[in-house]
Amino acid sequence: MAGSSFGNIFKITTWGESHGKGIGVVVDGCPAGLPLCEEDIQAFLNRRKPGQSKFTTPRQEGDQVEILSGVFEGKTTGTPISMVVFNQDQKSRDYSEIASYYRPGHADYTFDAKYGFQDYRGGGRSSGRETIGRVAGGAIAVKLLNSMGIDFLTYSKSIGPVTCSPDKFNADFILQNPLYMPDEEAAERAQDYLEECLATKNSSGGVVECIVTGLPVGLGDPVFEKLNANLAKAIFSIGAVKGFEIGDGFDVATATGLSNNDPFCITADGSISKETNHSGGTLGGMSDGSPLILRAAFKPTPSIAALQKTVNKSNEEIDISIKGRHDPIIVPRAVVVIETMTAVTILDALLMNMGARLDKIQEFYK
Amino acid sequence: MAGSSFGNIFKITTWGESHGKGIGVVVDGCPAGLPLCEEDIQAFLNRRKPGQSKFTTPRQEGDQVEILSGVFEGKTTGTPISMVVFNQDQKSRDYSEIASYYRPGHADYTFDAKYGFQDYRGGGRSSGRETIGRVAGGAIAVKLLNSMGIDFLTYSKSIGPVTCSPDKFNADFILQNPLYMPDEEAAERAQDYLEECLATKNSSGGVVECIVTGLPVGLGDPVFEKLNANLAKAIFSIGAVKGFEIGDGFDVATATGLSNNDPFCITADGSISKETNHSGGTLGGMSDGSPLILRAAFKPTPSIAALQKTVNKSNEEIDISIKGRHDPIIVPRAVVVIETMTAVTILDALLMNMGARLDKIQEFYK
Amino acid sequence: MAGSSFGNIFKITTWGESHGKGIGVVVDGCPAGLPLCEEDIQAFLNRRKPGQSKFTTPRQEGDQVEILSGVFEGKTTGTPISMVVFNQDQKSRDYSEIASYYRPGHADYTFDAKYGFQDYRGGGRSSGRETIGRVAGGAIAVKLLNSMGIDFLTYSKSIGPVTCSPDKFNADFILQNPLYMPDEEAAERAQDYLEECLATKNSSGGVVECIVTGLPVGLGDPVFEKLNANLAKAIFSIGAVKGFEIGDGFDVATATGLSNNDPFCITADGSISKETNHSGGTLGGMSDGSPLILRAAFKPTPSIAALQKTVNKSNEEIDISIKGRHDPIIVPRAVVVIETMTAVTILDALLMNMGARLDKIQEFYK
Amino acid sequence: MAGSSFGNIFKITTWGESHGKGIGVVVDGCPAGLPLCEEDIQAFLNRRKPGQSKFTTPRQEGDQVEILSGVFEGKTTGTPISMVVFNQDQKSRDYSEIASYYRPGHADYTFDAKYGFQDYRGGGRSSGRETIGRVAGGAIAVKLLNSMGIDFLTYSKSIGPVTCSPDKFNADFILQNPLYMPDEEAAERAQDYLEECLATKNSSGGVVECIVTGLPVGLGDPVFEKLNANLAKAIFSIGAVKGFEIGDGFDVATATGLSNNDPFCITADGSISKETNHSGGTLGGMSDGSPLILRAAFKPTPSIAALQKTVNKSNEEIDISIKGRHDPIIVPRAVVVIETMTAVTILDALLMNMGARLDKIQEFYK
Repeated sequence: MAGSSFGNIFKITTWGESHGKGIGVVVDGCPAGLPLCEEDIQAFLNRRKPGQSKFTTPRQEGDQVEILSGVFEGKTTGTPISMVVFNQDQKSRDYSEIASYYRPGHADYTFDAKYGFQDYRGGGRSSGRETIGRVAGGAIAVKLLNSMGIDFLTYSKSIGPVTCSPDKFNADFILQNPLYMPDEEAAERAQDYLEECLATKNSSGGVVECIVTGLPVGLGDPVFEKLNANLAKAIFSIGAVKGFEIGDGFDVATATGLSNNDPFCITADGSISKETNHSGGTLGGMSDGSPLILRAAFKPTPSIAALQKTVNKSNEEIDISIKGRHDPIIVPRAVVVIETMTAVTILDALLMNMGARLDKIQEFYK
Repeated sequence: MAGSSFGNIFKITTWGESHGKGIGVVVDGCPAGLPLCEEDIQAFLNRRKPGQSKFTTPRQEGDQVEILSGVFEGKTTGTPISMVVFNQDQKSRDYSEIASYYRPGHADYTFDAKYGFQDYRGGGRSSGRETIGRVAGGAIAVKLLNSMGIDFLTYSKSIGPVTCSPDKFNADFILQNPLYMPDEEAAERAQDYLEECLATKNSSGGVVECIVTGLPVGLGDPVFEKLNANLAKAIFSIGAVKGFEIGDGFDVATATGLSNNDPFCITADGSISKETNHSGGTLGGMSDGSPLILRAAFKPTPSIAALQKTVNKSNEEIDISIKGRHDPIIVPRAVVVIETMTAVTILDALLMNMGARLDKIQEFYK
Repeated sequence: MAGSSFGNIFKITTWGESHGKGIGVVVDGCPAGLPLCEEDIQAFLNRRKPGQSKFTTPRQEGDQVEILSGVFEGKTTGTPISMVVFNQDQKSRDYSEIASYYRPGHADYTFDAKYGFQDYRGGGRSSGRETIGRVAGGAIAVKLLNSMGIDFLTYSKSIGPVTCSPDKFNADFILQNPLYMPDEEAAERAQDYLEECLATKNSSGGVVECIVTGLPVGLGDPVFEKLNANLAKAIFSIGAVKGFEIGDGFDVATATGLSNNDPFCITADGSISKETNHSGGTLGGMSDGSPLILRAAFKPTPSIAALQKTVNKSNEEIDISIKGRHDPIIVPRAVVVIETMTAVTILDALLMNMGARLDKIQEFYK
Repeated sequence: MAGSSFGNIFKITTWGESHGKGIGVVVDGCPAGLPLCEEDIQAFLNRRKPGQSKFTTPRQEGDQVEILSGVFEGKTTGTPISMVVFNQDQKSRDYSEIASYYRPGHADYTFDAKYGFQDYRGGGRSSGRETIGRVAGGAIAVKLLNSMGIDFLTYSKSIGPVTCSPDKFNADFILQNPLYMPDEEAAERAQDYLEECLATKNSSGGVVECIVTGLPVGLGDPVFEKLNANLAKAIFSIGAVKGFEIGDGFDVATATGLSNNDPFCITADGSISKETNHSGGTLGGMSDGSPLILRAAFKPTPSIAALQKTVNKSNEEIDISIKGRHDPIIVPRAVVVIETMTAVTILDALLMNMGARLDKIQEFYK
């Protein structure tokens, strides 16, 4: 049902199927006055574009974005920004086989059960291409937040068994390798591992990490609209995510209060800060001024060429081997999706926060 | 700002502070015709009540709930159900010390930054007592779902370093021990560990797991309103949660497609099922008919008696030792909070799902 | 279903039935720092209290409000403000007759059809007492807006055939007569008319007008969230309202562009204003700096002692005469309901508007 | 700000400016299984298309709609339906004059004040062309409701001083005259009146009426989400609407309880009905089974060629005469906008209503 919108004041509404005419997004509630052009958006879309390495689907898509509304004389006007990417490489191949059974790990079965039938071409609305709308909409949020000194660093933290080492962290390297890892050595090992997955017609999972710096203190609300709660929803709404953490995440379960509490301290400039950041940048659901740190676990691509067991729509058990164009890993292309969904959530919280204090409201309207 | 409501059709709005007059909830959108009385709610509140063992705060609260509206002749009427628990044990002690500094791991600092000042008595709105409203509201959701064959099993999966073993899982034991663990041996070791924490004026984290059975297939929507996304928000909106997983959770990051995919199969009665349940009961964001399995990681109670460093409101670094009534662990009392928030999320998805198919709508209104 | 909340950032959630334990409201999203006490609220509730003249129901209710949360040391904290008015005069009389049939002009029939049964005691949730929650919540909005120079003037514009004359408008007189009319002569004639209604066991309709001054320009959004659209919903959500107008209202249908357009002009202080105010204070759905003027038409009280035809729940046509305590007119007590619902709508628009421009956002967070 | 979405479960999100690349809508939450093609939508758009008579702007627009997503093999899939109408006749004329001043009765001034600047080409987002998205989205709602036996009859009730007579009501005539009036004689007089308006470079207001039959009893919720309240918002969100009524509307103000109450009666088939329909089809905010009757008052087109006074952006008072392509009356083209916005509101209420009763929910999921 209605589930294609995200956000309260800054809101994105996405639409489109993998093999339909196109994919798009309407961004509503973008503040007026932000310089914006198609190149701003395209730079983000290019980070998730297929066909960039042997570890992504060879599907050829230019993924060129068009802005249809909401921008006038190079600036956002405050009215909805409609963007579209027309699909190009929708091979008109034979879907009769794939339409006949339920692929394990996919939404075919649940879609059928919910809606009575499904668009079986390439996963329809549950395809990874659905994230194009998120990235296009979120690119605007990133640009706007950047203009306020809020910055994002997002990368593949681990791929299969290969984890980046904090000691070898090199932010500049992230955009220089197809896996978007910040550790050159890990990136090499991860590539070897993925070669092995490809060779065995298998696929790999992994973890994406996102760090946000420059946040004002106090974003998010104390109870259900905690910043972390909305981030959890934003990230868990991305297909294939099965786990989400902030700060020390699941490690806190084995920590003690003494080791996990972050002592407050006074910095050189006299302001309040935290000595450590186990909390990952939120306290009581509100941003605490430290870097926001979050992680998401992605499951391995469910579409694999190896033989699998499943059932067909005649209720028979069968063996299948999924052909077609599939990434052996979702993680590298998901990096920019995590970044943009994080940005959408933060921008919305930043706008919602403006009405928190009467004195500031009175000053605003003076 | 406005962040005290959760849900779309079935919606809870909570209010109240730790040391104010009381804590309450308004449940809006509860279907008419559910038999309901205060005892139904009380049974759930008793599971989170303080003072039940040495591992919970000795604060004495009856936590007696009153239903003020929405029930007539023993049944819900479809109108809002207002419930209140009046606070009893608000010690009128001296708060001047606690009001003077920012407690590490607490929301004092972020509250001050956001709102200009805070209710420093016992954590105010960020106190664990805030969850009373959630539990009272969610108890109704559990009861309603139970009437439809949907059942909940929720327990402490781990406490500090002690994890329950699947081999020793005993559902009946859960309500028979103050830690709500399903493994008797683990429960003993966990108690030893907590004794140690108390002795060292320290505290412990842990993990809660919730299993939901009997769900129809298709609850949740494909994109932003995925069932798992709303569960992530629901659970992450609970104070002290730092991680959330569904099914295999973070383990999927090191899995392969072949090991992680759940093959579909035909059951003895001819219906479609999954051979395994790595997915934890959702596919493409919709319930898949298998048990829903989720886990949340809780950080250690930040209020500890051990000496800690922090800053006061005069911007000076100081050492503190927090006195007062605090649980050495949040997890056991959080078990019922996880269960009820899960129920609220599922019931809302179940109501939202009724408009998914035209044929079913036409039949409904025939 | 869920329909007891109004507003986005500043949000009121009301609950309670006419003959239940009480009536209340949770105000979420109130900015922190507003001085607030129960007397502030009580002053508004007293304007809608029954038993104040022979033209209101003789039901005796103190309608004393209690604030249960959200205020600390005399100021709002930014957390939800829960308020309750406990019912006192719920006569435990025999409801068997009224429970047996559907009263014309009431919600008995539709309630039964929707929910399967209803709380028939005094109208239950559809009673006029439901507005207590609106008035208590809206009183906070009025107080906050007053602190920003935004003022409200609300009164009975007409009662039955008696309309106040603009020439005899006396704002001071409004609170000095039980009908809340601004025209002394009209008030006298209206009282005569109502005496006549009482004598004939009949009732009267009327019109309420509200004027808001001091609004900043630009509140409301261009399309669905127009300020006038939200005001229309707010006012039409009040029971018994059958018509709503802004500015010249229905008269614009017979006007021409030349007569209806308000020319812009430059005022003595050099700012832009309008020479006339046919628009009633909005242009394109946004406040235009002129006074906001709205009107609502209320139907006559449906509960009348005169003989009426209806059907009972055994599907038989019967004649009834409704006994009990009823106002011969709703309008005077509805004046404060119109005012407070208008205030809630405006305050929400004022908070939503803060994120409209990037330059102002950047300045806010500097 | 975010204000371009309407509805809860069935939700439309519109975008686009008068002189931008196009106008569109995303329909989210449309139930799966509705047969749908572009011709279904086009039939509705043609009713609001310009250039059809001398009383509408001569702007030439084919207003051809394209469906970009959400329909597969001729049926809706339950996923968002994105539709677009590309603008064709955006004359690249000189806007420097119109950009220099504030047009009376338009949103130029309020837009500038709110957003800091505006898209001055043809009214931008506040143009009547914005309603294309509403009509395209609402056409789907009408089609779906028709499939359930719910029908719409919408027409111009009055134009300027000319009102249709109930005695001469001819439903078939509505689509046979460019003014969409149901009374042939009135239509002739209205045309004469509009000729006169054109000759004097002036414009006219009018009233649209919409009648909906076949509604089930109980749609809408008792308090803030009354069916009439949401209809009021839906209709008042249409530009140029200044008044809204249900049933007897403003006439109730001078009625008495005895004359205004609709007696319930038993119909020939034994079901409950009302003898009269002063209420216009709602009681207590819920549909009562009688025809829903609503009316909206539209102001005269503010763009007139006659000389008007206003101010320019240099804060000088000037005289202007607006050139360009403008309708001398909005009403006839607004008829289909009223119908489709009414349909969107009703369909959403119909979907929200499905969760009202536990017994029906249990049966639905059996």
